[in-house]
Amino acid sequence: MIRILDEKEIRQLVSLDLSVVDAIETGFSELAKGNALVPPIMMIPVPEKKGEVDIKSAYIKGIDQLAIKVASGFFENSRLDLPSQSGQMLVLSAETGFLQGVLLDNGYLTQVRTAAAGAVAAKYLAPQTADAVGVIGSGVQARFQIEALHLIRSFFTVHMFSLDADDLKDRYVSDMQRRLPDVTVVKAPSLEAVVRESSVVVTTTPARSGFLKADWLHPGLHITSMGSDTEEKQELEAEVLTRADLVVCDLKAQSVRLGELRSAVEQGLMPADAPVVELGAIVNKKAPGRTADDQITVCDLTGVGVQDTMIAIKTLALAEKRGIGRVIS
Amino acid sequence: MIRILDEKEIRQLVSLDLSVVDAIETGFSELAKGNALVPPIMMIPVPEKKGEVDIKSAYIKGIDQLAIKVASGFFENSRLDLPSQSGQMLVLSAETGFLQGVLLDNGYLTQVRTAAAGAVAAKYLAPQTADAVGVIGSGVQARFQIEALHLIRSFFTVHMFSLDADDLKDRYVSDMQRRLPDVTVVKAPSLEAVVRESSVVVTTTPARSGFLKADWLHPGLHITSMGSDTEEKQELEAEVLTRADLVVCDLKAQSVRLGELRSAVEQGLMPADAPVVELGAIVNKKAPGRTADDQITVCDLTGVGVQDTMIAIKTLALAEKRGIGRVIS
Repeated sequence: MIRILDEKEIRQLVSLDLSVVDAIETGFSELAKGNALVPPIMMIPVPEKKGEVDIKSAYIKGIDQLAIKVASGFFENSRLDLPSQSGQMLVLSAETGFLQGVLLDNGYLTQVRTAAAGAVAAKYLAPQTADAVGVIGSGVQARFQIEALHLIRSFFTVHMFSLDADDLKDRYVSDMQRRLPDVTVVKAPSLEAVVRESSVVVTTTPARSGFLKADWLHPGLHITSMGSDTEEKQELEAEVLTRADLVVCDLKAQSVRLGELRSAVEQGLMPADAPVVELGAIVNKKAPGRTADDQITVCDLTGVGVQDTMIAIKTLALAEKRGIGRVIS
Repeated sequence: MIRILDEKEIRQLVSLDLSVVDAIETGFSELAKGNALVPPIMMIPVPEKKGEVDIKSAYIKGIDQLAIKVASGFFENSRLDLPSQSGQMLVLSAETGFLQGVLLDNGYLTQVRTAAAGAVAAKYLAPQTADAVGVIGSGVQARFQIEALHLIRSFFTVHMFSLDADDLKDRYVSDMQRRLPDVTVVKAPSLEAVVRESSVVVTTTPARSGFLKADWLHPGLHITSMGSDTEEKQELEAEVLTRADLVVCDLKAQSVRLGELRSAVEQGLMPADAPVVELGAIVNKKAPGRTADDQITVCDLTGVGVQDTMIAIKTLALAEKRGIGRVIS
């Protein structure tokens, strides 16, 4: 029996809330316990269209399903007035290998699970008091990450900076004002202003050089950098990592190759075997998170297959419970 | 627009015929021309269930779709009276990355494209006259491979040997007699008898040691070995490869790791950079196939993503043309 869900159905079933954050936190916990088998990301390049299809997956011992996520990024789609990102997930039985669910989410679940990872990072690394927070970028993740942070910390102001056009930035402000009515969202005059004014900063860009400078760091700051997920991308100046008191990542093997650790290691500022902590180890209390209000902490998120498996399983279970979707026997 | 096809619909649309063989041959040709981007196979192990999910894909330049094939092998399923193999394919636009088709074929298309590769191998490597042919194994591929061979060469006798139970072997004989009424299918008394009596032998087993011995080779023999596709499997004694006049494989990078070349290289009988010919190079006339009736030729097939992309695209195109399947917009 195969259940097929479309994006509308999936959006009805799953939204960014604490139950999703819990599921993603469990995924990181299992990963750090060594209970997850995470193959390297499969990348199918389509150079003629500046496109790439990436496949992520993870089998988590003791969980009777696994997911395979297929995510496309085609950067000439904007010429066709189409989104560059798309994607879907398959859920397979980990008992028999049989297909059980097809989640035609158009990448929505990736957005939610990525934001939920930001919430997990904030839970363990953000200072307890964070009146003002910041975001770099004004796209979908800039929205989701601030919503995720709001599940974890109370704040009153969001400072946003983006290189996007004014209308996109204005839309971000009005969208976020509507979603978080108690919070004031302001367009910051500069990158530096966002960092200087905020206790927590989330970077959500496809930047290819470290725009966030180490000189702007201040005691008590937490940074979550979720933009870099390829060998070309980078958001944080490499010195940010050496200046921080604690550097955390989701999966070190990926962060060193595709995330913010890459540039620090390539520039010789960190050894490849630097004592970087994985987020799940903190969840499992095998390593400390933030231990003092004045620490500077950084979390680099590249996106791990365990997140996809956790959110896909949750989605399919909710659909089964509520009888939603088309069933093919 | 996403078109979803179930196994029954797919079986109505696609069967093993010369048009499928042509499509697979084109795939090998493009592969050998360097026009295919074939990422390494992604393997998700589920050791608790002796299971594994493998993902294959290929983007072929100039073709506007690509496929992703997810294939499961769970070897404890027989305890549940379920088949160990299952699978499905996704078809994505190579223009935009968007999903266009979900082929719920339960592994049927893999069976067809694997057999079609055997037909391509036979076309270029089997002796022109092959009155008697042989098959090792009595499963689904033992059926498909003989049907594929029959598209390419006229033969009158099939010698079959298998370690399966008698009832399975009898069913093979009666099935094949029905499918190929002009051919006599006989149970051979031994492995050796199959090889000695046949001009073409196809091995279709999950064996883990080289059961087909070099001592049994005779002038004019062609062997297609399609069973080995993991680091543990092997069907041909390594000396078979060194004794043959011509050794061909589908993709050298896979054959050295997962196919029959592995054991020969590991035993030091062949260098890892041995001059092994890829099937597509013969298709493209960049290398000769069989050039004399008395040559001994071997083709090792591990299964390449280009085959999956070619057959999946063909299936979806036929479904669109005939308006078959469920469409989700």
